[in-house]
Amino acid sequence: MIVRPRPRGIEYFLVLHGSILPTIWLKLTLTVVTAVLVTLAHGALFHVKVILTPMPFNLMGLALAIFLGFRNSASYERFWEGRKLWGALMVTSRDLARQFESFLHPAGGGEDEAAELAHTRHRMTRAIIAYAHALRHHLRGSDPGPDFDRLLPADWRPALAHAEHRPAAVLQRLGGELRLCIERAWVAPILAQEIDRSFSRLGEVLGGCERIRSTPIPFSYSVLLHRTVYVYCYLLPFGLIDTIGNFTPLVVGIVAYTFFGLDAIGDEIEEPFGTTANDLPLSALSHAVEADLRELSGEGCTPPSPKAVNYCLQ
Amino acid sequence: MIVRPRPRGIEYFLVLHGSILPTIWLKLTLTVVTAVLVTLAHGALFHVKVILTPMPFNLMGLALAIFLGFRNSASYERFWEGRKLWGALMVTSRDLARQFESFLHPAGGGEDEAAELAHTRHRMTRAIIAYAHALRHHLRGSDPGPDFDRLLPADWRPALAHAEHRPAAVLQRLGGELRLCIERAWVAPILAQEIDRSFSRLGEVLGGCERIRSTPIPFSYSVLLHRTVYVYCYLLPFGLIDTIGNFTPLVVGIVAYTFFGLDAIGDEIEEPFGTTANDLPLSALSHAVEADLRELSGEGCTPPSPKAVNYCLQ
Amino acid sequence: MIVRPRPRGIEYFLVLHGSILPTIWLKLTLTVVTAVLVTLAHGALFHVKVILTPMPFNLMGLALAIFLGFRNSASYERFWEGRKLWGALMVTSRDLARQFESFLHPAGGGEDEAAELAHTRHRMTRAIIAYAHALRHHLRGSDPGPDFDRLLPADWRPALAHAEHRPAAVLQRLGGELRLCIERAWVAPILAQEIDRSFSRLGEVLGGCERIRSTPIPFSYSVLLHRTVYVYCYLLPFGLIDTIGNFTPLVVGIVAYTFFGLDAIGDEIEEPFGTTANDLPLSALSHAVEADLRELSGEGCTPPSPKAVNYCLQ
Amino acid sequence: MIVRPRPRGIEYFLVLHGSILPTIWLKLTLTVVTAVLVTLAHGALFHVKVILTPMPFNLMGLALAIFLGFRNSASYERFWEGRKLWGALMVTSRDLARQFESFLHPAGGGEDEAAELAHTRHRMTRAIIAYAHALRHHLRGSDPGPDFDRLLPADWRPALAHAEHRPAAVLQRLGGELRLCIERAWVAPILAQEIDRSFSRLGEVLGGCERIRSTPIPFSYSVLLHRTVYVYCYLLPFGLIDTIGNFTPLVVGIVAYTFFGLDAIGDEIEEPFGTTANDLPLSALSHAVEADLRELSGEGCTPPSPKAVNYCLQ
Amino acid sequence: MIVRPRPRGIEYFLVLHGSILPTIWLKLTLTVVTAVLVTLAHGALFHVKVILTPMPFNLMGLALAIFLGFRNSASYERFWEGRKLWGALMVTSRDLARQFESFLHPAGGGEDEAAELAHTRHRMTRAIIAYAHALRHHLRGSDPGPDFDRLLPADWRPALAHAEHRPAAVLQRLGGELRLCIERAWVAPILAQEIDRSFSRLGEVLGGCERIRSTPIPFSYSVLLHRTVYVYCYLLPFGLIDTIGNFTPLVVGIVAYTFFGLDAIGDEIEEPFGTTANDLPLSALSHAVEADLRELSGEGCTPPSPKAVNYCLQ
Repeated sequence: MIVRPRPRGIEYFLVLHGSILPTIWLKLTLTVVTAVLVTLAHGALFHVKVILTPMPFNLMGLALAIFLGFRNSASYERFWEGRKLWGALMVTSRDLARQFESFLHPAGGGEDEAAELAHTRHRMTRAIIAYAHALRHHLRGSDPGPDFDRLLPADWRPALAHAEHRPAAVLQRLGGELRLCIERAWVAPILAQEIDRSFSRLGEVLGGCERIRSTPIPFSYSVLLHRTVYVYCYLLPFGLIDTIGNFTPLVVGIVAYTFFGLDAIGDEIEEPFGTTANDLPLSALSHAVEADLRELSGEGCTPPSPKAVNYCLQ
Repeated sequence: MIVRPRPRGIEYFLVLHGSILPTIWLKLTLTVVTAVLVTLAHGALFHVKVILTPMPFNLMGLALAIFLGFRNSASYERFWEGRKLWGALMVTSRDLARQFESFLHPAGGGEDEAAELAHTRHRMTRAIIAYAHALRHHLRGSDPGPDFDRLLPADWRPALAHAEHRPAAVLQRLGGELRLCIERAWVAPILAQEIDRSFSRLGEVLGGCERIRSTPIPFSYSVLLHRTVYVYCYLLPFGLIDTIGNFTPLVVGIVAYTFFGLDAIGDEIEEPFGTTANDLPLSALSHAVEADLRELSGEGCTPPSPKAVNYCLQ
Repeated sequence: MIVRPRPRGIEYFLVLHGSILPTIWLKLTLTVVTAVLVTLAHGALFHVKVILTPMPFNLMGLALAIFLGFRNSASYERFWEGRKLWGALMVTSRDLARQFESFLHPAGGGEDEAAELAHTRHRMTRAIIAYAHALRHHLRGSDPGPDFDRLLPADWRPALAHAEHRPAAVLQRLGGELRLCIERAWVAPILAQEIDRSFSRLGEVLGGCERIRSTPIPFSYSVLLHRTVYVYCYLLPFGLIDTIGNFTPLVVGIVAYTFFGLDAIGDEIEEPFGTTANDLPLSALSHAVEADLRELSGEGCTPPSPKAVNYCLQ
Repeated sequence: MIVRPRPRGIEYFLVLHGSILPTIWLKLTLTVVTAVLVTLAHGALFHVKVILTPMPFNLMGLALAIFLGFRNSASYERFWEGRKLWGALMVTSRDLARQFESFLHPAGGGEDEAAELAHTRHRMTRAIIAYAHALRHHLRGSDPGPDFDRLLPADWRPALAHAEHRPAAVLQRLGGELRLCIERAWVAPILAQEIDRSFSRLGEVLGGCERIRSTPIPFSYSVLLHRTVYVYCYLLPFGLIDTIGNFTPLVVGIVAYTFFGLDAIGDEIEEPFGTTANDLPLSALSHAVEADLRELSGEGCTPPSPKAVNYCLQ
Repeated sequence: MIVRPRPRGIEYFLVLHGSILPTIWLKLTLTVVTAVLVTLAHGALFHVKVILTPMPFNLMGLALAIFLGFRNSASYERFWEGRKLWGALMVTSRDLARQFESFLHPAGGGEDEAAELAHTRHRMTRAIIAYAHALRHHLRGSDPGPDFDRLLPADWRPALAHAEHRPAAVLQRLGGELRLCIERAWVAPILAQEIDRSFSRLGEVLGGCERIRSTPIPFSYSVLLHRTVYVYCYLLPFGLIDTIGNFTPLVVGIVAYTFFGLDAIGDEIEEPFGTTANDLPLSALSHAVEADLRELSGEGCTPPSPKAVNYCLQ
């Protein structure tokens, strides 16, 4: 995610990082070169004058408006739903920190039991932190090993290392811990229910993120949209040459920039869990979960949170 | 669902599988042939010159934009809601696996009871897997027999084989199992409530999928939309011939491709539980439920998950 | 609701039942006749040439696009929300069947008590079926008497017959039955809570359906929309006559068909609980509730479900 | 709210009450007068010919479409959310009537206690009715005194009369009654929780209505929108005069009617709790709550519900 | 937030405060000056006649409509979600006041215990008030010190002063208080669960507000939108000069006013927690929470609520 103060006036034209230009420069250049060639040939192709008045572009524009408008909303909704899911992860993590504080009491009152409970609470808190990191690694296909080593008890690690689905496995382990608390009578069943619901909400975050990652906007739709944008932009010079003559490449360049740009941004934010400039800063978010949980549970030693590099936070 | 890496640039024009072209080639060809005939006849029909300037197409385009824009959003919403429901199925299945782990305890502590409980837990887990498969078969009208044979206890099968509504019957059975757990005091009532809620959520998934399958976008709407698209595309040559002459068939082809294409994709994803290229991969999703539940409950032996054939996952 | 296999190609033009044409043929004919008269008079009205270029129609078209686009979405949302509510009714009914199975246990264990409980469960199940029918009758203003006679105990009927608000009264009775179960200790309070929630959801369905039925899209809006559509269609010939001459009636007919059609469909689905072709099949839905509940509770004797007459399901 | 059978055909042009015309006739007349003057002067202003072709109106129309389309949806959503909130109020009131019936039992079984409980139940039911009326008075700034006198116990009234926030105070009192029921063991804690949730939902209705009433669409937005509509309508004659001559006032009138009308309806339904023709019928709704609760709790004596005056229900 | 009676007719043109004009006057002036220069030079730039017919602006207008329409909705949704979150804060605070009243009972009945409970209730109520203020300070980056000093017990303050995340820390403290109530048996576990849920809802408000504040609309999108608006407005004179001559600056001014204005309002309400004219009145809202809670819990001494200065409420 690009993190920077909002530019003002002319600055908007100088921004390069965070602009979509680097992604589309090639096709944009090709389009403009085509437009220049068409202008030089006065709209003739192999000595046949191509007459395309602006009219066809109004007709195509209709379809294009529907395509791009819809695509744009759908992609942004996916992006924003992804952010909402990670927001719910953060909220629920904090809820769990509070619930561990409010709901878990030693049953008898012995010293040993209190220590054991404190230890369990500590283990569960860390498992939740590990869950946030595991979700990030799961979505980005990276290795959760180092984070697991840092955060999980040694006896959990071997099984988790072999699990197909690590975040689900961590959550299942948390269910085991809850079972222990119930068996030891550290928590009233009714309050165990509430903790279980928070676990369920963590599971919903996982399911929601997997849904967004595994189910793109239908492929046929994508194909149709791209083809229309390309055809539109490459034919445009023929439609303009008779009306605005030498200014054709300029106008084609501007129009192609907006359409290719809109399309490319849609491509980026449709799958918001990657590491491109407009994706969600999952590293920063999972570290925020860690920082918050460590502060709320009274632990210190939060690892440094990731910094924006070149205005870009991952 | 088409599963493939995103094409780049020119590749988009070479993709055939996953494109909507195979579905609409016939009407597209007919439209272009009409346009060619109109061009050859210079817009005259039975020696009467048909004068349709572009203007009527702007007026019709207005209605068309409303129709297609709305239809498009409504269909995608149905597709996406279908996916959300299956996502909820997966999330809830995992929740149940965790809840069986956390909430079910032997009441007394005898060896026998523990074994019996383990057996019940096993039976319930498998019934949930069977539920996912039953839902798929229910939506696609296929036979759940083999999956039931694999997963359900022998004494359940005869009744289920005769049930009108199999997924609901499986869920009812799960309710019976829960009753057993309550009667044996294996689960506190408050925690039984939570498991029942997960069952209710499974029931919501079923109800939601049935709603999408049984209630299409109002038929009159569909008729009106199709008629307008057809009339628009077949009359278009008469509107263009006087302006762009011999390039009429080209432009008609492009415009008809986008409109017929948009319409055909809408038709496909409006009912997302079928087996066409853009439908949801229910087989893969129900197998993912099976794989996750087997891993979380410590069983192995997951049957191989379906692979994408020709980039298409069912 | 029209229930039929999707037509293909030319079939779309032959469909009559389910088309909106029968509803709008009068005004459509009037519009076309007007267009013919205008064409014959070459656009002169009482010997005054009316000059309306296409331009005013572009301006009006702007407002019309907003009106129709919005109206269309709002009506469809109402239709779809109505369907969702009936879907929730079905899901919750099944949930209740399962909850009666899981949650209700004889307190003591005597034979008599078990029989009494079975009887109560039976009565409650039938009351839920009666609720679904009562809701349909309530929304359509028909008489629930026969269904109540079939389904409710004799001693409930007199009071219900005089109730102003019958579905609410049935639900209140169900609350009384739940009270009985609590008093007899047939259900743990925590599980009674869950059943009560299902009742509340049934109440939400009722409230939601009443909301849709009693609160149409604001009337002023409707008036403004209809006036604009009429004025647009009747003035259109004057705008086209100078450009496309004799083809004016054809184009006016097509444009008027789409606009009047869109408007008429909106009118139909805005209030989706009636009995016109595009309304929700409440009879079929309430019978589906009955069939499912009878199957799940092990009763037979489901009355035959309504069949589509002339492709139309009510 | 206008309550009347849907007009048909020509009737739509004769409707006055419920039309937006009475609200906008002044500005509409001014616009038409301007158009007549411009037509008489042939588009010259102080002897300077003002050349505004239709083109600028296409450009402005773009912004206008965004403005009006957005404004329109946002206002309707507010209207509809308001209706949903009042629907939730009705549903929750009925839920509470049912819950008082199901959940409240005398602890001991003495005659006195039963009478006391009946009395408390009666008091609580009436307090809920009073809450509905109080909400209406709160939103419309009217005096809840007479309704409170009718419905609340004498010892509650003085404190409520001085409360800043009366609906919240009534709800707080209901909380006090619930506390009494818990202390007297008339209700199991778990079922008290459910009643408390219904109270919370009543509180959500209050909060939601206050939100809609206190937070209009951002003022700057409103200003920008109104200015654009005015400028558009007053400049329009200059854009049309050269194309359609003497028909300018007619077209300007029609266009201005749709734009001013759309704008005025938006203004009305944006704040749906007032007493103008398109506002929600809060009086009728709160009386419906009263009627339902009196019927469900077995009390008679419902005061007559308000009737539509001149098709308008308040 | 601008709080003022709705202007009427001509007043809309006189409003300055609350208009977006002060924000955009500079770029608007520059655009109009450019238009004047272009008009004086008759569209020639360095003696080269720039021919840009209106056509390119129709094409660009298409992209612009998508951009601005989408941006506009997205920003308003963020604004409205922010308001909803603060509404939920208010509703939940009142719920908690009611729940403290209904659910907390002295366990034994001794005088001391009652006093202690009253004291705890008082402390918790004030902590909720402090939470509302802390959230405002957190979102606006201001210092919560004075409000904490006013509202929180002396022994909480040092830890909170050093907390990274103060609202979360206050909520964690509230969890500690709830733990105390459970340990002292002042609250049944089931009712503690309900209070904990209200705390979770407070946490959701916090998480939601943080999400809106920390995740703007993707930066690339913003850049693309601004560039298109600028290019459009600065090139517009070249497109109009040949059609409307000397009236070019007027039309450019009007069009640029609407586009820059729409853009600037979007910028303002996209991040609705600041202190500009269209932002949410967080000070007023958090004081309303304080006033309501003090009234409901029977405390007086509400500090005066902030007044609108120059029609603007912060």
